[in-house]
Amino acid sequence: MKRRVFTFLDPSETEHPAEKWVDAAVIALILANTVAVILETVEPLYQRNRVFFDGFESFSVAFFTAEYLLRLWTVTANPKYRHPIQGRVKWMVSSGAIVDLLAILPFYLPLLIGYDLRFIRLLRLTRLLRFFKMGRYVGAFRMIHQVFRTKKEELVLSLSITLLLIVVASCLMYFVEHDAQPAKFSSIPETMWWSVATLTTVGYGDVYPVTTLGKTLTALISILGVGMFALPAGILASGFSESWKGEKNGQNCPHCGESIKCQ
Amino acid sequence: MKRRVFTFLDPSETEHPAEKWVDAAVIALILANTVAVILETVEPLYQRNRVFFDGFESFSVAFFTAEYLLRLWTVTANPKYRHPIQGRVKWMVSSGAIVDLLAILPFYLPLLIGYDLRFIRLLRLTRLLRFFKMGRYVGAFRMIHQVFRTKKEELVLSLSITLLLIVVASCLMYFVEHDAQPAKFSSIPETMWWSVATLTTVGYGDVYPVTTLGKTLTALISILGVGMFALPAGILASGFSESWKGEKNGQNCPHCGESIKCQ
Amino acid sequence: MKRRVFTFLDPSETEHPAEKWVDAAVIALILANTVAVILETVEPLYQRNRVFFDGFESFSVAFFTAEYLLRLWTVTANPKYRHPIQGRVKWMVSSGAIVDLLAILPFYLPLLIGYDLRFIRLLRLTRLLRFFKMGRYVGAFRMIHQVFRTKKEELVLSLSITLLLIVVASCLMYFVEHDAQPAKFSSIPETMWWSVATLTTVGYGDVYPVTTLGKTLTALISILGVGMFALPAGILASGFSESWKGEKNGQNCPHCGESIKCQ
Amino acid sequence: MKRRVFTFLDPSETEHPAEKWVDAAVIALILANTVAVILETVEPLYQRNRVFFDGFESFSVAFFTAEYLLRLWTVTANPKYRHPIQGRVKWMVSSGAIVDLLAILPFYLPLLIGYDLRFIRLLRLTRLLRFFKMGRYVGAFRMIHQVFRTKKEELVLSLSITLLLIVVASCLMYFVEHDAQPAKFSSIPETMWWSVATLTTVGYGDVYPVTTLGKTLTALISILGVGMFALPAGILASGFSESWKGEKNGQNCPHCGESIKCQ
Repeated sequence: MKRRVFTFLDPSETEHPAEKWVDAAVIALILANTVAVILETVEPLYQRNRVFFDGFESFSVAFFTAEYLLRLWTVTANPKYRHPIQGRVKWMVSSGAIVDLLAILPFYLPLLIGYDLRFIRLLRLTRLLRFFKMGRYVGAFRMIHQVFRTKKEELVLSLSITLLLIVVASCLMYFVEHDAQPAKFSSIPETMWWSVATLTTVGYGDVYPVTTLGKTLTALISILGVGMFALPAGILASGFSESWKGEKNGQNCPHCGESIKCQ
Repeated sequence: MKRRVFTFLDPSETEHPAEKWVDAAVIALILANTVAVILETVEPLYQRNRVFFDGFESFSVAFFTAEYLLRLWTVTANPKYRHPIQGRVKWMVSSGAIVDLLAILPFYLPLLIGYDLRFIRLLRLTRLLRFFKMGRYVGAFRMIHQVFRTKKEELVLSLSITLLLIVVASCLMYFVEHDAQPAKFSSIPETMWWSVATLTTVGYGDVYPVTTLGKTLTALISILGVGMFALPAGILASGFSESWKGEKNGQNCPHCGESIKCQ
Repeated sequence: MKRRVFTFLDPSETEHPAEKWVDAAVIALILANTVAVILETVEPLYQRNRVFFDGFESFSVAFFTAEYLLRLWTVTANPKYRHPIQGRVKWMVSSGAIVDLLAILPFYLPLLIGYDLRFIRLLRLTRLLRFFKMGRYVGAFRMIHQVFRTKKEELVLSLSITLLLIVVASCLMYFVEHDAQPAKFSSIPETMWWSVATLTTVGYGDVYPVTTLGKTLTALISILGVGMFALPAGILASGFSESWKGEKNGQNCPHCGESIKCQ
Repeated sequence: MKRRVFTFLDPSETEHPAEKWVDAAVIALILANTVAVILETVEPLYQRNRVFFDGFESFSVAFFTAEYLLRLWTVTANPKYRHPIQGRVKWMVSSGAIVDLLAILPFYLPLLIGYDLRFIRLLRLTRLLRFFKMGRYVGAFRMIHQVFRTKKEELVLSLSITLLLIVVASCLMYFVEHDAQPAKFSSIPETMWWSVATLTTVGYGDVYPVTTLGKTLTALISILGVGMFALPAGILASGFSESWKGEKNGQNCPHCGESIKCQ
């Protein structure tokens, strides 16, 4: 019986058609929760459908609590967490289980410790963690995780180059523009906001240089720097591209990383 | 006779030089129609040349109606739609024929159901569908279609990563900036507009964070996120590049996907 | 004698060290002319150094006129233009000679046809053509020319996709935003300005959607469209990259287009 | 003794665990100095912690002065600078030693030549040079240096194309927009600021065309030009990517430049 519940809850062992339906229903509920959290912030919409939103929240919490308890009960069927007590504790501190717990805990907390508007809003944020429960079901999450792990070294190196550039650009710009625009380039940390907006080419237009020297410097920094900022993006993109190819075919050509069919 | 009309209308069987001239004339008329729809929206230009614009519209509709009827008549020459009635119905519900019909129908509709300014403007929009009649003649349309079909899986996956990022960025930003700018970050759906403008690096500058925490978060999100948003673009670009190579040469090297000449 | 002058003027046959110095001096004069045209537009700078700027202009025109006449005289030394009259006429209508002529002609024109401020400013623009005289000396110009020629087909195809996207995006956006912002989205041609600013991700912030539907549409268009707009850029970039490799090594690997050393 | 101090200071010969701790401490001090310079510019923060910031600065200068003198003393242990006097002078004019000196000198200068607020702020900028002392310890700096050296030719060529594009775009735009917006497009150098902001797609929104001709020109320039501006970025990115691969494996495939394991 425990064995069957475990198989029901574990998406990786789905074989039975009924289990597929259960998985689809859980995914739908998670997506509906995400949409609900997003729509609740539209004040007029929430006021009009308060009963519905609160009812749906109660139902969801009940469902996810039941799911959490069932998982806690059946997890010993997984050889990794075989021991009745130690295994369960080990599962409870795994990242997946912590996300599951944090996604339902905020509902119970205000009942215990009283109300505080600001604090409650923060707690609502944690409800979005339910979205990451999707990780069990959807390959995209696994792939993001894998890409970040495979490309860790290159990402760290390119991010440190990015950081170096932000520091250098901000310091130069602060010394050049501070006197002309003391409010917008008030300090180097403040100027970093300009650096990021410029080097990512977002360019909101709230902060920009006005002196000739500042404009010339911006031109130089942006022409060379934009390339550096494209590095983390390029690394992630090539990581995903490699993951896709790796998933489709098992084998990679030793020459170009492209998949090949060896005889 | 029917056979000859069919060959005349079908751009894929163009051999006769006269047919090339017909094709060129139809393409010119389609382009002229597109330009006309675009220029008609320039109010003073339309008022001054009202007679010309309306005359050209009437002529175009007459031409495209005749073309539609001729196609309907001769389509049975195509083995795919051989049956006199079933074949013609099958052709009428094909995407190309629906585009053809929708591109002329709005002209006749107001005659039947009376005038309503707002509704008429919407109907005018459908006149632009004439532009897509080009699909029969120009390879670029075929290529776009093919690239989207070949890269469907990767596009869906990368778009879901994009969507995930928009949701996460918007939720975080809403909770961080809502108190400082209740008008601009009024709700999570509203904040999504900021997410898209930032992560595509368009950066209109109508919405941007003002708090220190919001700016720091924006910096982190944009440095990492811009790469994710470049994924669908990169996939489409590589798809087109592969299509071009594929069109030029029939064969691809198993190593790098580049075309080769094997002995 | 004519032969020696020809060799002196032709940068491709530079062997003598003295010729190198002549080439360098001409390049310096061309660059100085470009800088002068640029700096003359700074009104206070021009007023203060009027005598110097006008003197430099007279000297440059004298020099380039002499160069033009010398070239016209010696061009028959080039086997391509051997015939004394036909060869010279043939040379005069070559693109390089036309640029040379247009770069000096405006100086003489006002002497003949009287002054008109607006017209004179236009003539000044043609002085910038002197910059393109550099084409004879600098490889970068040759490379740009070559890349555009090699990638012509792909550029035309990708530019037509870009154009298609601008037309579609502008038409949709016009119908969605026209009622909310009749001044900024006044017509489809006007809306095209928004399309270009958004799809190239420049995002000046002078025009942006305000309705929910407009924002949603912008999000969809920009996520998918930015990739299409990156196509011409990517084609040019890969064209330059191939040109570089091709210039360094004579041979390309049949597999990946990368240069190889075959035994 | 001198030999041991030299080995202690030189990060490339770190073998002893104690030396690793010394290196880590120096890196930490350099980073703390960078953070201090950045935070000092936040006026309220500096006023509140003046004693701490000034104390830390004195300590750092003392430390880096001692380091400089020790290096000067022990540098003769390096075979490259063996000679007691000539070797030391040779070391003092090496780029690393100049950075080291400039990073501490400003502290002593005001003591000698009296105070001047504006001048002191400039001197503070040189304190940031301490950050580049990191170059000795962190591979990222070495890699940046190496990439710029390897790709020098291509960078110069692509930057000259970029410069060419800025000049051409600015001249055209100046002649088109000057009459409509004499303040913003006041001269060609001023218009270059618009060119850079547009072609890097930063698009602050402080300068943009308003005339129809100006907008059309901007559309053309940005669609084609954005690709050219992406060239230096792309070259740097591919340079880093090659450096990474080169660092991981010693050998490259002759086909695609990818690393391979040959038998």
